[in-house]
Amino acid sequence: MASFDSADTVMQRIASLGRISDDQNWLTRTYGSSAMTRANEQVALWMKEAGMATRHDAIGNLIGHYPAAGADAKILLLGSHLDTVRNAGKFDGPLGVLVAIAAVQHFNNRNVRFPFAIEVIGFADEEGTRFQSAYLGSKSIAGRFKNGDLERTDAAGITLSDAISTFGGDPGKLDSARMDPARLLGYFEVHIEQGPVLEKNDLSVGVVTAIAGQTRARLTFQGVAGHAGTVPMALRHDALCATAEFILGAEAEARSVDGLVATVGQITTLPGASNVIPAEVALSLDVRHAEDSKRAGACSNLRSLAKQIAERRGVTVNWELIQESLSVTCDSGFVAKLQKIVARHQAKSISLASGAGHDAVPLSKITRVGMLFVRCKGGISHHPDESATVEDVRVAIAVLTDFIEQVTN
Amino acid sequence: MASFDSADTVMQRIASLGRISDDQNWLTRTYGSSAMTRANEQVALWMKEAGMATRHDAIGNLIGHYPAAGADAKILLLGSHLDTVRNAGKFDGPLGVLVAIAAVQHFNNRNVRFPFAIEVIGFADEEGTRFQSAYLGSKSIAGRFKNGDLERTDAAGITLSDAISTFGGDPGKLDSARMDPARLLGYFEVHIEQGPVLEKNDLSVGVVTAIAGQTRARLTFQGVAGHAGTVPMALRHDALCATAEFILGAEAEARSVDGLVATVGQITTLPGASNVIPAEVALSLDVRHAEDSKRAGACSNLRSLAKQIAERRGVTVNWELIQESLSVTCDSGFVAKLQKIVARHQAKSISLASGAGHDAVPLSKITRVGMLFVRCKGGISHHPDESATVEDVRVAIAVLTDFIEQVTN
Repeated sequence: MASFDSADTVMQRIASLGRISDDQNWLTRTYGSSAMTRANEQVALWMKEAGMATRHDAIGNLIGHYPAAGADAKILLLGSHLDTVRNAGKFDGPLGVLVAIAAVQHFNNRNVRFPFAIEVIGFADEEGTRFQSAYLGSKSIAGRFKNGDLERTDAAGITLSDAISTFGGDPGKLDSARMDPARLLGYFEVHIEQGPVLEKNDLSVGVVTAIAGQTRARLTFQGVAGHAGTVPMALRHDALCATAEFILGAEAEARSVDGLVATVGQITTLPGASNVIPAEVALSLDVRHAEDSKRAGACSNLRSLAKQIAERRGVTVNWELIQESLSVTCDSGFVAKLQKIVARHQAKSISLASGAGHDAVPLSKITRVGMLFVRCKGGISHHPDESATVEDVRVAIAVLTDFIEQVTN
Repeated sequence: MASFDSADTVMQRIASLGRISDDQNWLTRTYGSSAMTRANEQVALWMKEAGMATRHDAIGNLIGHYPAAGADAKILLLGSHLDTVRNAGKFDGPLGVLVAIAAVQHFNNRNVRFPFAIEVIGFADEEGTRFQSAYLGSKSIAGRFKNGDLERTDAAGITLSDAISTFGGDPGKLDSARMDPARLLGYFEVHIEQGPVLEKNDLSVGVVTAIAGQTRARLTFQGVAGHAGTVPMALRHDALCATAEFILGAEAEARSVDGLVATVGQITTLPGASNVIPAEVALSLDVRHAEDSKRAGACSNLRSLAKQIAERRGVTVNWELIQESLSVTCDSGFVAKLQKIVARHQAKSISLASGAGHDAVPLSKITRVGMLFVRCKGGISHHPDESATVEDVRVAIAVLTDFIEQVTN
């Protein structure tokens, strides 16, 4: 188990990184920015302190290499991302990188080497804040970077290609960032939960079994506008009433399937006057589940429901699929190992699915993946109030060090 | 009964007035504008053709006087408004003025005088489009103009006081516009229905029994934001789901009370992202009924419902009363007379409440009022597609001429 100091160190480093920002007033650190360069420089120093040799790949991922006991060894990948959303919390991303460094430091302090190398990666882009395309860092390592993305521009009109060069990378050699699947033992990531489940269960950490697949759709109900005073209820075709029925239907569907979540987060009403019956309502729908078949079933039910509501109310509905991503299953061997380890460090082991995406998603294309969640105060994330306690971080470091010791058993 | 030509003439005049606009591309004629001046000039000519002496009062209402058979006679007021909303239809307002002129023309052509005078009023402002204060014309005649309104400014910063002067009126002498209740026989207005009831019943005209009272409120549900992927359904406090339940509750309440209408026309969601659970939703509520007690009962039920929903869902709700107006009952003698007359001109007589406000509302403070609605194609109003047929206008003229002949019976 790691020394008691290592969790304190992680918390101090979380605070230090939280001050490295593109913005003076809050934490924003986007791909290729000067804050990202400074963050990489700082994290590279900590990696070196922990006995790692550091390098940057062609897109600017920071990689610390902790050598194996022998030659031709495989590599266990650890890590998370160092970029953030705008006005971010300090834990989302950096926690996983710093806990991994703490674990390596623990072994380096004891001159422990394994039959495999460890590489700790600080991914250069997971959030996609600057170029509206997530996972640029882990996609490159997984060989899934799409060259078309090089033409993407940020708000200032700078292309991703130019941003990669400015960041010290090489947009022409992104293929070189790809890691050879044959050499990898797996990828393991520690991340703040970003939800309330661990807090609700009063547990420090939880074993992630899967990362949910997601369907994003945009629905438009089209009814008939009319004067709020002169059209009797029986003669109305109110697009907002149809929408209200759908929103409650989506909620009921999600409540009826364990682990399913469905969210309507955006809604726009036309004409949008207090004295006019809504003619048109556009709304977003976000559906997620760790099992793709359950998500697909729910979406199919909701699509039928929308049609039924529309027909019954004499309105029309259009369902536009915006995005669909499949779920990622964590390696069952990793999960089983982690469940045993976690049960030794807290009252009980708990498994949960991740509703949010993580770097483990692209990495799952080339190697088995595992994740450990750390309790998140109030479930609040993507917000300056995001936080985790030093005690929970201590448990996470302990679990990770045990996991590294046992990964090849 | 009026000659067949008079309805054609009304339709031609509706078209002519529809071309007198402040805007080249669509019909907009607001209080005190150059288009209103030209409309008043045109309508004054038609009034004179019909045997009326014309004058403008201090706020710019156009009044045509058709003399009584004798001296010291009372006055029957007829009319409607000549101003419009932006991008308006041609019938809302002008129809009532032109049908009244057609009726007077009918009697003047036959040299018929009554023991009462007739005054046809073209109100200078009913819609409140320019100064966001409705009924400026009829309020002046009813002695209900509030001098504080003189300080109101339009979008260009021009005060109502200056606009009155520019329009040829006198902001210092608005009291002079007030008519003496003792001299009035009553006020009668023909207006396009602006709703679908007459069309649904396949009838040309309908007798208005009351103008609905109205409650406007703004509700705010306050829940807790959260990640759409990571917060399980059971742990959510979704302000939009609470709102959806309220919208359907308001619809059900209105459907359960004959003549009640309830409308949520505006809705705003914060933070308004597809992947974030809505933390706050603000919505408008518009409730109307011809009986104030039924409206009050419905509002009380809806307020309780909002609280129940909020408590059950662990969110809060705020109910802000924006505006409340009492209903106006049309004179029962007028209504009875009209029902008989209408039954002679179409298959049956039908009574209905007006959900929209009209100049009859302020006039009801000083004299008994009556209204006749004319079928409105598709129920569409406040829109260029607003229309009525020449056949229905012919019925309206016939009913009005009969009503004038019988009003003192």
